Amino acid sequence: MTHAQERSRPYGSSDELAARFRSTRSLSEALVEPLSDADATIQSMEDASPAKWHLAHTTWFWETFLLRESVADYRLFDERWPFVHNSYYETEGERIARFSRGMLSRPSLDEVVAYRAHVNEAMEDLIDDSRHADLIALGIAHEQQHQELLLTDIKHALHQNPLGPAMWERVESASGETRPADGWYGHPGGIARVGHQESGFAFDNEGPAHRVLLEPFALSQRLVTNGEWDEFMADGGYERATLWLSDGWAWIKDNAVTAPLYWREGEQFTHSGWQERDPHAPVTHISYFEADAFASWAGHRLPTEFEWEAIARGQEGEDAAHDPTAGNQLDHAAPPLPTGEGSLFGDCWQFTRSGYLPYPRFQPAAGAVGEYNGKFMSGQFVLKGASCATARGHSRASYRNFFYPHQRWQFTGLRLAKDV
Amino acid sequence: MTHAQERSRPYGSSDELAARFRSTRSLSEALVEPLSDADATIQSMEDASPAKWHLAHTTWFWETFLLRESVADYRLFDERWPFVHNSYYETEGERIARFSRGMLSRPSLDEVVAYRAHVNEAMEDLIDDSRHADLIALGIAHEQQHQELLLTDIKHALHQNPLGPAMWERVESASGETRPADGWYGHPGGIARVGHQESGFAFDNEGPAHRVLLEPFALSQRLVTNGEWDEFMADGGYERATLWLSDGWAWIKDNAVTAPLYWREGEQFTHSGWQERDPHAPVTHISYFEADAFASWAGHRLPTEFEWEAIARGQEGEDAAHDPTAGNQLDHAAPPLPTGEGSLFGDCWQFTRSGYLPYPRFQPAAGAVGEYNGKFMSGQFVLKGASCATARGHSRASYRNFFYPHQRWQFTGLRLAKDV
Amino acid sequence: MTHAQERSRPYGSSDELAARFRSTRSLSEALVEPLSDADATIQSMEDASPAKWHLAHTTWFWETFLLRESVADYRLFDERWPFVHNSYYETEGERIARFSRGMLSRPSLDEVVAYRAHVNEAMEDLIDDSRHADLIALGIAHEQQHQELLLTDIKHALHQNPLGPAMWERVESASGETRPADGWYGHPGGIARVGHQESGFAFDNEGPAHRVLLEPFALSQRLVTNGEWDEFMADGGYERATLWLSDGWAWIKDNAVTAPLYWREGEQFTHSGWQERDPHAPVTHISYFEADAFASWAGHRLPTEFEWEAIARGQEGEDAAHDPTAGNQLDHAAPPLPTGEGSLFGDCWQFTRSGYLPYPRFQPAAGAVGEYNGKFMSGQFVLKGASCATARGHSRASYRNFFYPHQRWQFTGLRLAKDV
Amino acid sequence: MTHAQERSRPYGSSDELAARFRSTRSLSEALVEPLSDADATIQSMEDASPAKWHLAHTTWFWETFLLRESVADYRLFDERWPFVHNSYYETEGERIARFSRGMLSRPSLDEVVAYRAHVNEAMEDLIDDSRHADLIALGIAHEQQHQELLLTDIKHALHQNPLGPAMWERVESASGETRPADGWYGHPGGIARVGHQESGFAFDNEGPAHRVLLEPFALSQRLVTNGEWDEFMADGGYERATLWLSDGWAWIKDNAVTAPLYWREGEQFTHSGWQERDPHAPVTHISYFEADAFASWAGHRLPTEFEWEAIARGQEGEDAAHDPTAGNQLDHAAPPLPTGEGSLFGDCWQFTRSGYLPYPRFQPAAGAVGEYNGKFMSGQFVLKGASCATARGHSRASYRNFFYPHQRWQFTGLRLAKDV
Repeated sequence: MTHAQERSRPYGSSDELAARFRSTRSLSEALVEPLSDADATIQSMEDASPAKWHLAHTTWFWETFLLRESVADYRLFDERWPFVHNSYYETEGERIARFSRGMLSRPSLDEVVAYRAHVNEAMEDLIDDSRHADLIALGIAHEQQHQELLLTDIKHALHQNPLGPAMWERVESASGETRPADGWYGHPGGIARVGHQESGFAFDNEGPAHRVLLEPFALSQRLVTNGEWDEFMADGGYERATLWLSDGWAWIKDNAVTAPLYWREGEQFTHSGWQERDPHAPVTHISYFEADAFASWAGHRLPTEFEWEAIARGQEGEDAAHDPTAGNQLDHAAPPLPTGEGSLFGDCWQFTRSGYLPYPRFQPAAGAVGEYNGKFMSGQFVLKGASCATARGHSRASYRNFFYPHQRWQFTGLRLAKDV
Repeated sequence: MTHAQERSRPYGSSDELAARFRSTRSLSEALVEPLSDADATIQSMEDASPAKWHLAHTTWFWETFLLRESVADYRLFDERWPFVHNSYYETEGERIARFSRGMLSRPSLDEVVAYRAHVNEAMEDLIDDSRHADLIALGIAHEQQHQELLLTDIKHALHQNPLGPAMWERVESASGETRPADGWYGHPGGIARVGHQESGFAFDNEGPAHRVLLEPFALSQRLVTNGEWDEFMADGGYERATLWLSDGWAWIKDNAVTAPLYWREGEQFTHSGWQERDPHAPVTHISYFEADAFASWAGHRLPTEFEWEAIARGQEGEDAAHDPTAGNQLDHAAPPLPTGEGSLFGDCWQFTRSGYLPYPRFQPAAGAVGEYNGKFMSGQFVLKGASCATARGHSRASYRNFFYPHQRWQFTGLRLAKDV
Repeated sequence: MTHAQERSRPYGSSDELAARFRSTRSLSEALVEPLSDADATIQSMEDASPAKWHLAHTTWFWETFLLRESVADYRLFDERWPFVHNSYYETEGERIARFSRGMLSRPSLDEVVAYRAHVNEAMEDLIDDSRHADLIALGIAHEQQHQELLLTDIKHALHQNPLGPAMWERVESASGETRPADGWYGHPGGIARVGHQESGFAFDNEGPAHRVLLEPFALSQRLVTNGEWDEFMADGGYERATLWLSDGWAWIKDNAVTAPLYWREGEQFTHSGWQERDPHAPVTHISYFEADAFASWAGHRLPTEFEWEAIARGQEGEDAAHDPTAGNQLDHAAPPLPTGEGSLFGDCWQFTRSGYLPYPRFQPAAGAVGEYNGKFMSGQFVLKGASCATARGHSRASYRNFFYPHQRWQFTGLRLAKDV
Repeated sequence: MTHAQERSRPYGSSDELAARFRSTRSLSEALVEPLSDADATIQSMEDASPAKWHLAHTTWFWETFLLRESVADYRLFDERWPFVHNSYYETEGERIARFSRGMLSRPSLDEVVAYRAHVNEAMEDLIDDSRHADLIALGIAHEQQHQELLLTDIKHALHQNPLGPAMWERVESASGETRPADGWYGHPGGIARVGHQESGFAFDNEGPAHRVLLEPFALSQRLVTNGEWDEFMADGGYERATLWLSDGWAWIKDNAVTAPLYWREGEQFTHSGWQERDPHAPVTHISYFEADAFASWAGHRLPTEFEWEAIARGQEGEDAAHDPTAGNQLDHAAPPLPTGEGSLFGDCWQFTRSGYLPYPRFQPAAGAVGEYNGKFMSGQFVLKGASCATARGHSRASYRNFFYPHQRWQFTGLRLAKDV
């Protein structure tokens, strides 16, 4: 594309966008192939949703924001379903209490798949229309987010089962037999430009791009490993109050937390059931509180979101061949959850010490879509990178994931930083 | 049978017992036929259990108390399942938290059905052995209890679904177009013999039979109806504190209770989805608190368990042909949940003002089976009769059902009493 | 008095009633003498009330039900106080949330004492009027109940204080150095007449008197002691699920209960601070759950309320000199909380296995006073006897105290029964 | 002082520091003069502490960190009190559960005052010793913080009382009869130096000083008023979900919030009881959620902490006579809580949209004192300025107050910002 084309077609040609729509839709369905109707129905906590609900809700998105608005004679698949499959859009009317989603044994998984087909077919009439490109790109990104949630939510649900069921065969880990090499990316400080500044899709919370002033710092070239976490635990990491934020200390006491989520003696729970823990693989399923305590114990700290982004962009600069979305992320090829050594992207989302707050001159988008990200800007922290469960092509240097400091059912990990 | 035979075979001949075992097992399976794997998996509250769990737990009972004990080479269907399917038997070891039962998407409904077949087959070797007759009779009664719970639990779960799904076609109600006739059974007072005193199975809590002293009283010949409940509500029944027990008033305020469970404007939720409410049918799904408030409003009171039993036995006396288990209860014929006019049995369990407490000289049975009923003797009330969801042949005059005063997801109703 | 007089003056002569009014009022004030304004203000849990509130509420009772009704020109001490000092009388209008009583630093203790004086003075005009005798007798009984609550509530509050403050000097215990002798009161069974059947005041829930049928039984001549409780604990009493009611087991697990309330190593908390525990003194501050578990462990059981009453009345018969209210109960003489060997009355309230439920033909009194007892008839158990904190003359054989099975901040103890 | 002296004596001469110690101690005692022992004992919520506890805890601070460490023969006032009066210092050993502070009716207010005298006297030997100047300055700042908390905590406690008691006579408000003039402080953007950069005391969280990059913006010259808040409410401010952060919307629904804390029809609760609300006075006792929703409604936003500080420093630059601590803050002169027009300081703490997080190169101090501020760095927002309850001399441009977004019992208000 020419530069002018690029500006007018930030998401690629209409054929490319249509292809991405189709492959995204189809990936969602592939992810639930190993699941029974019952697997896809259960909800293990308020933070999580049933797999079936993710499938339906992502479909509701297309129906509500595109088909209902733009197709004159569009017939709703079922008139009562919007109420059931709305998530948090207050402007889109009433919705069921979040924790009741696990009661939706009906519609069945098959009916939800039929709903998806109905909407996919109707979408074919719109998919080439460049007037809808913005919403289509948003809908793809939205569905990719739910793909990751679907995977982390079903993992949490299967973990509740004392029988420890697997949804996939065990995937060989890419991490080898040796501890990854230490090393730091250095940065001299100064003014850096951060936030979404390329063509292509980005969420509203990634902009506007702006400049920030950084002090000199260094960022670890690798993630903290399971083996290092074992050392932290052996050294009384979970018993020494002075390592912990006050809220974190209360949280581990109230919840009897003594290890990362999904750990038990020598093993961790995975999509392939209980597996031996690889000491050289990145530690994952930790909370911000745990990440911060570990960093204190290690004599380092968490990076800010801008430090992380500056290094990520520097990498991009240094190495034109570097594809931040390459690596071990989720795509249509099965099995989808390998782990591996990486760039800053992949393996685990990485906690930063930056609160999830608006950038200068941030404005939420108008309408219901504007509820997308801005309304969650209190009490959460920014995570950067991407995980093994992130759809390929979904992440980028400016991407801001966000969770509360106690949440850890995502593939969350830790990359240390230090002042220099 | 001769009297001597009856004493030695209180549950009928071994063929009869075996036939009852088989028909009970088969009824359980028939009940879940309209349910999907997902329907059978969900759990809507801590008081309820998934349908699948009921199927498996009743099977676990046979495996644990009979097959494992008495069949030398019995092979457990799955070694990890006992942990999952134990209910509350502390002596039988660890078990999963009650509210985690709804996370058991695996095993699937099909696997549970296979488990049932495995156990049924193994049971065939024992079923004729009179040494096991007591445990077999108990196991049948246990399974019948879970049949009723299965039905009330799935009703509660389906009710959470805003789509209001049905599991059966609508069943025509037996109640006609006219309000049932008023009338009272009178009793002159005096000494009555209560508790289990016949041959045949009874739970430990129904005995020992003993004498009680009654004052003169009368018991209504019919249950309170939906139409009468409408009058109670129209007269401010839920807004007048003086009608209510103190705990009841707190309960309706804390839970915003303004009608029986499953009511909405002009309709009630049933196993056949939302249906128009019949004003002449017995009101059901009320709590003890509501039953007591209604009785106060009506100028009457609830009967004691012994008053109820004395009348029930009197009926039996007057009418030798009276079969207390006849009527509209659950058996293998579909559809299983009609309502109808009745004896004291059928339609709804009836709250009494009697606390669920031990009879004089009550002794729990030895061993794990002894945990059966005695350990629940605090804070609950006795209910008498049987409901439309009670298995035919399960109830009797001495039967003591029991629930906490706020619980109302059973088919609970109300028969008034008065002093004379 | 002649018999005719007795019937017309069931509470004694008007001089006697007036004297009891005055000594009761004055005892309330004596009880708070050791307390500071701050002591009298704090509230340690929802079940308890501040001492100051007890003083004011008992005064509000006279103001509301007598002075405001019967004295034409009665001036309320403060127009805003009725709202603050109403307890649970729904018919008397709005009242503050129960757990906000501990926020009433104002009015001060001095102001409340002034309120008492104001009401006492106004009462002098009514006290001789026989038309009010029923309400006066009720008001005295009501105030006596609050005297006991005041003592148990302040004990609970002082116990929260890690400094373990005392409100009285240590009182020498009457229990000696030897374990009390074992022994049983036998009863042959048969028909007994129970409930209030003498002249004199009784609460509505003690009647109507009626007959009950008892099986043969025996009741221990003494209360279970601290030393016996030590044996129960040493034998794993709090760790063996099979000894416990199901609700009780959940309660000890949820609340980490491993001993009676107020126990710590070798000591117990008293109104005189932490004191060495006397192994021969009756165990106290136990819940129904604990009492029931102990009885199971001991191979005995709790008595019913009627068994207890039958023995208490038998004692009275055998020994005309026996005064059930004699002994070690609370009166104006200091120090008020000795313990001692006893009749069935005194030391501790004794749990029965009888649910707190209405007697045959029970009718609550009309009007607000009718809210007195009947509305609490669900989920609680009857306790008989009296404790060291019960006002002298307050208890009687028909008296029915009642608490929930988990409550234990009263002086609750245990007298075993057995079948014979 | 010369510049060299200033560097060596950042807190002024030892005489000046001693004078500030004495006046601070004495102000604490003056604040509780209107309170009874009971007033000083009660605790209305977990976030608040009793007045008496504040008096004792601030005294414990001197005893623990100075006297016990530095005076060889120092005698603890009471050996059991440190346990009772520790707040959150994990390194200083066990402490009582925070919500049990309200149970400390003993020690009495008089005893706590005696404790203060004991410590004050012992401090006289240390107060001139420049080796302790850092800790003394910290202790003064610590006690000043607790003075403000004492005032906001007792206000909250008195507000629970339906009698609406006052602790002071009404103070005439400084705000006049006209709405304050609108106006904006503009800022061109660019690099600003923020954080503590002067001599004198500052908390660890105010440093290190560092540079930040600002976009052009403007900050309102006045606080939002009660009258403007009335308009917000009249315009459905509390009923329009799109104005609210997601957590905020859940918070107002869960807590039925429909107005600022302490508001009722036309009035607000103050230290002088219920008073008519002045429409021209700054609105106060709002949460971050409410501040943010108002800003959205008004079409503006909250400032960042750095924007606020840049303007505050600019003011200082422009107007050498400007004393940021002048105005209407708390000092020894009574009455202490006037409101008034102001600089950026005074009246109310002002929410910023900055998360309370560490500055670059932030290091907590070593030892127990190091628990001071850093461990609270999650989930809270920074507030700038000072309130009418802040001790004179306590605040400064770099000061960072911090609270959770739902908290509003402090004098919290709102100053709007906008992009230019």
